[in-house]
Amino acid sequence: MSDCLFCRFAAGEGEIEVVLRDEVVLAFLDHRPLFPGHLLVVPVRHAATLTELPPELTGPFFDRVRRLTAAVERGTGAAGSFVAMNNRISQSVPHLHVHVVPRNPKDGLRGFFWPRTRYADRAAAERVAAAVRAALD
Amino acid sequence: MSDCLFCRFAAGEGEIEVVLRDEVVLAFLDHRPLFPGHLLVVPVRHAATLTELPPELTGPFFDRVRRLTAAVERGTGAAGSFVAMNNRISQSVPHLHVHVVPRNPKDGLRGFFWPRTRYADRAAAERVAAAVRAALD
Repeated sequence: MSDCLFCRFAAGEGEIEVVLRDEVVLAFLDHRPLFPGHLLVVPVRHAATLTELPPELTGPFFDRVRRLTAAVERGTGAAGSFVAMNNRISQSVPHLHVHVVPRNPKDGLRGFFWPRTRYADRAAAERVAAAVRAALD
Repeated sequence: MSDCLFCRFAAGEGEIEVVLRDEVVLAFLDHRPLFPGHLLVVPVRHAATLTELPPELTGPFFDRVRRLTAAVERGTGAAGSFVAMNNRISQSVPHLHVHVVPRNPKDGLRGFFWPRTRYADRAAAERVAAAVRAALD
């Protein structure tokens, strides 16, 4: 038996409400939702984070995420949605899981309400952009 | 000239720090980052939200998001990342944009700190799961 909770779910164990299960993903209700219909979408094949998702699975995986997002919006009658994943930091289970959360006006959530900062100047921004460009595969 | 800010950026206008520009995506620094290196990744071809992204572009688009996430982590020396998109609600510009944000321990953000709720019972969860399944393309 796998040590990974979401691998066990993918293997058919656990008391979960499955929304979609196929060869690529398992999508199920988060048992403590932000709002009813909040899904977790996980790859059946273990990948700890987005960056460890095999390139050949990235398209099929996110094709399901896109379709599931539409389904959450339609199925719950939501005006919109929030789709997010935490990689390592704030990641509760070390198996990639995309949160798909229905959203509505004045629902009490705010998308990005953390304090924002600013780059000191254009040069500071250029240095950061260059570091990220240089790190790109 | 397009009315859409991100279409104008994709067309080469605007004062932005570009990290990647190819036939599928434009990735650039959010000018008011959560942390330095916070990117916005947008499809070059206009799509308002994730659910409107053409199926044939979903794979190529998220392949770039995955690579850019690795680049942000490596390029900024971050321990992890947060990758998210708001669809309609809390969406500041109505052109799909994926936030790729570097994360570190004790960085002051919390991934999902909104109040969580619970399904009243198994039947309530089953009803919601059924509604979402029924809405799936």
